[in-house]
Amino acid sequence: MGLKIAVVGATGAVGKQLLSILAERKFPVTELIPFSSPRSEGKEITYLGKTYRCQVMRKGCFDGIDMAFFDASDAVSKEWAPQAAASGTWVIDNSATFRMAPESLLIVPEVNGELLRQKIKANPQPFIITGPNCSTVQMVMALKPLRDHFGIKRVVVSTYQSVSGAGAAAMEELHAQTSGVFSKNKIPPQAFAHQIAFNCIPHIGGFKADGYTSEEQKMMQETRKLLGMPDLKITATAVRVPVFSCHSESINVECGKTLQLEKVRQVLNEQPGVILQDSPGENIYPMPSPGEQSKVEGGSGKDAVYVGRVRLDDSVENGLNFWVVSDNLRKGAALNAVQIGEILVQALF
Amino acid sequence: MGLKIAVVGATGAVGKQLLSILAERKFPVTELIPFSSPRSEGKEITYLGKTYRCQVMRKGCFDGIDMAFFDASDAVSKEWAPQAAASGTWVIDNSATFRMAPESLLIVPEVNGELLRQKIKANPQPFIITGPNCSTVQMVMALKPLRDHFGIKRVVVSTYQSVSGAGAAAMEELHAQTSGVFSKNKIPPQAFAHQIAFNCIPHIGGFKADGYTSEEQKMMQETRKLLGMPDLKITATAVRVPVFSCHSESINVECGKTLQLEKVRQVLNEQPGVILQDSPGENIYPMPSPGEQSKVEGGSGKDAVYVGRVRLDDSVENGLNFWVVSDNLRKGAALNAVQIGEILVQALF
Repeated sequence: MGLKIAVVGATGAVGKQLLSILAERKFPVTELIPFSSPRSEGKEITYLGKTYRCQVMRKGCFDGIDMAFFDASDAVSKEWAPQAAASGTWVIDNSATFRMAPESLLIVPEVNGELLRQKIKANPQPFIITGPNCSTVQMVMALKPLRDHFGIKRVVVSTYQSVSGAGAAAMEELHAQTSGVFSKNKIPPQAFAHQIAFNCIPHIGGFKADGYTSEEQKMMQETRKLLGMPDLKITATAVRVPVFSCHSESINVECGKTLQLEKVRQVLNEQPGVILQDSPGENIYPMPSPGEQSKVEGGSGKDAVYVGRVRLDDSVENGLNFWVVSDNLRKGAALNAVQIGEILVQALF
Repeated sequence: MGLKIAVVGATGAVGKQLLSILAERKFPVTELIPFSSPRSEGKEITYLGKTYRCQVMRKGCFDGIDMAFFDASDAVSKEWAPQAAASGTWVIDNSATFRMAPESLLIVPEVNGELLRQKIKANPQPFIITGPNCSTVQMVMALKPLRDHFGIKRVVVSTYQSVSGAGAAAMEELHAQTSGVFSKNKIPPQAFAHQIAFNCIPHIGGFKADGYTSEEQKMMQETRKLLGMPDLKITATAVRVPVFSCHSESINVECGKTLQLEKVRQVLNEQPGVILQDSPGENIYPMPSPGEQSKVEGGSGKDAVYVGRVRLDDSVENGLNFWVVSDNLRKGAALNAVQIGEILVQALF
């Protein structure tokens, strides 16, 4: 068995991760079609030792393609994802375009993959499946077992988001600007509204009328949808920090039942995809860049969602604090999409 | 009128700031005695163009000194601050040693300076006055007007703390380690438990039995004392970020009365020492390192506590989110101490 697979946005930060994860996980690809923006047309990418040239999307380009991963802009998904689905291609879309549409499935396999399996079973016709915003994915991975075991009444989250979420150019900007601070060679901001080197910028996405950013709104809305809790009380503050890769989050939860700390630790650690990393006495807790020689596992390139600093919060009934770190390009985007693809493969091909 | 002033820890990060603020604010110093650790004995410091040699503290060294600023370790304050007070010296102590003792005054002048004035008036005998932890100072500056106008029921805070709070060596470590990442010259962590370059470390101070760090406990306990609300519900998560100077905080507050956003903005802006910086449409919000050419004021060397990203939080009754940034060495430590000294000068000398 093998599939004809398209990757839209193959030269972007997430697209590159997606190609490497498809290879790592031996996804059944027999033919690969990398699509890019006109700017990157003809650019070569490598997949399992073979070289491919990026193509630009044209009418009919999805004919005969079994599955397409969209890792481009909202606008590209809006234009092309419906055409792909209409061509009979299963679409896994990482953009924000279709996530919140009531008829649209928003999936994190370890959280609500069952919804996808049920829908395919009921009607196995190609449609668009969406993956959430990166900062949402790692949060719901930790909230899911808490919801199951204790109930969740309210969530307050503050993020510490890496620059890789803003793309490859943003990573380059952090690098160049940081060097520039040392060499007195000032690099003006382009990917961000302000200097990111040695700074924290409380501004991700665009500002809405209520003062929240689009990133903050996504975290609130998508979490409600993923957990199947349309009335969940949740508030978010999203902040960019000078870290290359991996988002961190400080999460406060008001649960519905009495918490025993050891039971909380246990259900978090038993959640598939989550690793509990919580031995503060040995300086072990999740971090985005522990450094290569650190005894703390984690950082860029890891699949897990790491959870630590788990402690009861007595400022509210059944309160809990914890700290979550994950690679935003992997579980936050590319890995999650490939896992959705794996559900499709299992159910359909 | 002039005073004989001692500065304990004159060569440290806070001590240096203190000397420069005393000069800036024309503090009535006629004689300056800088004290240091034995390691820095004889080291020269400059104050208003004059050079002084650091001395080591010895029995009787505070005799005849009017006022002493302590900006050294908890251990140094524990040993020497009581001796200074017993010698008839007014002591302003920035260490954690005496802050939480029930008989001890913990002061942020714009928040509870009146307590100090009352106590001096009742009995003008030299005693130890303490200044809070840096991350507490900037938070209570914003909470005070909210308490006064709307009441406060619960606070959830997550910090983004700069390395300067860990001293000059920590700032050097961030610098060297960041350069090292670029040049592949790995600099092992010394000031922190892990690499701080391009990382976030959810660990400031030591871990306590309940899983909180000493920094988090200080923020909770000192805030209750400063606001005169011993039963205030408050929980904190303290995180070190790769920023040289200025702490940032994401604060969620449940207030006691209905909030009108414009009224909230107004009372925050009217609080002495606070500047509202909240025009998200123009990309104006507080940041620790906006960059020299930024149109956003702030960053290292400023006196104000900057507040922005003010928005209602509908996940709880009378909920509010905001973001606070201030120079942790200035209002967070040295400036606050000098302001306490100014109250003493006004009342006593």
